[in-house]
Amino acid sequence: LGVLLAGALCVSPAFEQVRQGADPATQAQSTATVVQREALSSRRAFELVRSLCDEAGPRPAGSTGDHAAVLWALRTMGELGLTNVHPEKVEVTRWERGEERAEIVSPVGQHLVVAALGGSVGTPPRGVEGDVVEVGSVEELEHLDPAAVKGKIVFVDAPMRRARDASGYEEVVRVRYEGPRVAAKLGGIAFLLRSLGTDHDRIAHTGGKSKDEHEIPSAALSVPDAEMLHRIVAEKRTARVRITLGAHMLQAPAESANVVGDVPGRERPDEVIVIGAHLDSWDLGVGAVDDGAGVAIALETARVLAALPQRPRRTVRVVLFANEERGLSGARAYARAHANEAATFVAATEADFGGDAVYAVRWLGDAGNAAARERFVALARLLAPLGVARGDDDASAGGDVGQLQELGVPILELRQDGTRYFDVHHSANDTVDKIDPPTLARAAAAFATAVWAAAEADGDFGRVPAEKRKVQ
Amino acid sequence: LGVLLAGALCVSPAFEQVRQGADPATQAQSTATVVQREALSSRRAFELVRSLCDEAGPRPAGSTGDHAAVLWALRTMGELGLTNVHPEKVEVTRWERGEERAEIVSPVGQHLVVAALGGSVGTPPRGVEGDVVEVGSVEELEHLDPAAVKGKIVFVDAPMRRARDASGYEEVVRVRYEGPRVAAKLGGIAFLLRSLGTDHDRIAHTGGKSKDEHEIPSAALSVPDAEMLHRIVAEKRTARVRITLGAHMLQAPAESANVVGDVPGRERPDEVIVIGAHLDSWDLGVGAVDDGAGVAIALETARVLAALPQRPRRTVRVVLFANEERGLSGARAYARAHANEAATFVAATEADFGGDAVYAVRWLGDAGNAAARERFVALARLLAPLGVARGDDDASAGGDVGQLQELGVPILELRQDGTRYFDVHHSANDTVDKIDPPTLARAAAAFATAVWAAAEADGDFGRVPAEKRKVQ
Repeated sequence: LGVLLAGALCVSPAFEQVRQGADPATQAQSTATVVQREALSSRRAFELVRSLCDEAGPRPAGSTGDHAAVLWALRTMGELGLTNVHPEKVEVTRWERGEERAEIVSPVGQHLVVAALGGSVGTPPRGVEGDVVEVGSVEELEHLDPAAVKGKIVFVDAPMRRARDASGYEEVVRVRYEGPRVAAKLGGIAFLLRSLGTDHDRIAHTGGKSKDEHEIPSAALSVPDAEMLHRIVAEKRTARVRITLGAHMLQAPAESANVVGDVPGRERPDEVIVIGAHLDSWDLGVGAVDDGAGVAIALETARVLAALPQRPRRTVRVVLFANEERGLSGARAYARAHANEAATFVAATEADFGGDAVYAVRWLGDAGNAAARERFVALARLLAPLGVARGDDDASAGGDVGQLQELGVPILELRQDGTRYFDVHHSANDTVDKIDPPTLARAAAAFATAVWAAAEADGDFGRVPAEKRKVQ
Repeated sequence: LGVLLAGALCVSPAFEQVRQGADPATQAQSTATVVQREALSSRRAFELVRSLCDEAGPRPAGSTGDHAAVLWALRTMGELGLTNVHPEKVEVTRWERGEERAEIVSPVGQHLVVAALGGSVGTPPRGVEGDVVEVGSVEELEHLDPAAVKGKIVFVDAPMRRARDASGYEEVVRVRYEGPRVAAKLGGIAFLLRSLGTDHDRIAHTGGKSKDEHEIPSAALSVPDAEMLHRIVAEKRTARVRITLGAHMLQAPAESANVVGDVPGRERPDEVIVIGAHLDSWDLGVGAVDDGAGVAIALETARVLAALPQRPRRTVRVVLFANEERGLSGARAYARAHANEAATFVAATEADFGGDAVYAVRWLGDAGNAAARERFVALARLLAPLGVARGDDDASAGGDVGQLQELGVPILELRQDGTRYFDVHHSANDTVDKIDPPTLARAAAAFATAVWAAAEADGDFGRVPAEKRKVQ
């Protein structure tokens, strides 16, 4: 029962264990085991993060690093055995951070570590200075008398809860996204928030904010600095802060690209399973966790499936999206360009929650379709050996693949353990050393298994019902 | 058997348990218990760190923050019930960091997080740029052909081992202290080292270097950056780095002060137990761990002993030294000024290893003197309830109190758990949130017990023999 090894890739002996001629469920289990052994025994996913981050560096949309990342992705997809490898151009706006600094000027001089929020305007070169008005939430801010805010620097001190999923982040993300608008509307002259992070490092976490009619300079304080400012305000009643931000938009839009590559299906090449991640990163770190890890998971999934003795029935398509961080313009462009092919996308999944292990799988499709549900149950069963539990049928797509969900494409959600994710998310601490190679391999094994199972399934997962297509 | 409470301080009911009239060992045990309960049940030590750091901020010798800290110490000693509170002036040199930045310019543009070493010269305003020559140790550097170093930027990549004591630091500290001199001698144009730290944060650790005849700009890279540079050098053979440092000495010397306060002895006020810590800090953090914690331990020791129903037999003297970090000039001045009183210093101890718990006590005195040894054994016995083991008779003084050791003053060393100490040591991450209040209280309880026991002992600890006076 020996099998032929596909392609010229270096393939581990595990592949030789795929047995043919058994019943479909046994065959599926057998192939899943091969996929898992290959992914678990390889350091390739880590090496992909390392080479992306070391060779391209930080890669905000439209930057030199972003362009280097597009070239890296095109070259790497070719090396890993993907076909139909090509870029799809995306126009992006460019924002640059420039110099930034802040300090408490009274009642005591203290340095503050800050990071401008993505899209923030800068200050005049000499900065802005004002007394601080502190609140614990955007809701509290909304209820302040404008007279208490006018001419002041607004500071929202909302500590973030550590959680396995993104719930701790979701509880406070409105502070960063909407806080600046509310503060500006009430007459605030600048906006500061406690970094949305679960660490205690003297490092600030950036992130996107809403695009507002009236913009004020907006920045995150490191957690230790936010705690110090909070203590000083609590004790001394008033604190005066000066902040100087060089942040600005560049006038001319720039070019970036979604990078796409396929493992062509052996029987139904026109039916596609999409696995997405994003190629861009914030500027402060090198985007190893966000989203070098996801890029590596998607590429490792494709590598393992391309090297199987028998490629999956359907096409597996890796889409490395441009500019997730500053507005999803890559994903929106992809969904627009491929809207008329949406019916051929049988399922989509996204890796954008770091490099830790997968603990649950959920789907979003036609929950009323018994055959579709049974296919999901069978898929989930293959993930059990990796410690992945079967979740409900109310999966959340990430931001990128959410654009396909809006077209009705069923979603497979592989929930990764995010307990440590927000320690480094969007910060200078997002570096290669934060990735644990065996743990990343375990995550890749789960994605590869799920994508293989969806690509090999004997039928589809229905379509997302109209009322569930809109991403929250 | 009720007792009188001393002074006007708020004293816990534990003090009421001191019993009089029992045998000396039982009385000692009883008082030690009271000391420990008071220290363990108080949040005062933490509050001292918080107020020093929040009110004075970073306090490099001679800076505004340093002056604020001297005033803070004078005021706080008075509030805590110390007497004879006074400053002793110390002349210090001043060094300022200025702006600093670094980057890999080829084979790929990458930002590097750096911190100039204390005392380093700066670069020209446009920086220095050169190819990197990497070695793993100063010894390896010393054996390089000068032709391989001339005109290059020297990078020493010596990872530091995590340890409970300072041994991991001691193994590599020569890199920081002597590396710049060796690199300069071989013709290097700048010196970089992997930060001496056990963390993986994108934060660099500064620290002192030797004062050299020929100075070159010298800085520490954050650990993630050092690892990246190491990977790039390993893969691409050459990396080119540009570094810009604004570091410089100020021309005029400045004034600082050792701050001294006493708990006067009830029977032998002219015999003194010294407990030292240092008031200055590096500029990058706020010096909560190094050495706000030590300052708090010393002050809390004095507070608890001053509030005892019966003050200890000898005087307990808190000395908060100036300028430990940039050359021990405070401690040298103190030892010089008080050399003729050295015989009245019965023992000295120092708190300069963070805010974690004490796990062992050692002494250095006249080991051949059986009565002195028995006093140390009795002292150590009182520390056992705090989980402190009795160590040998070869104690190491810290840098400050080491100046007294050189005069023959016996040393009591309370070894604190330093497992986490080098995660934040000398870095921007040395902030108040790194102090755990109950753990700091536990450390203070141990110091207070040992100092009380030494101050109450029925005799002395001999003198340090001549051949053991020289601090390594």
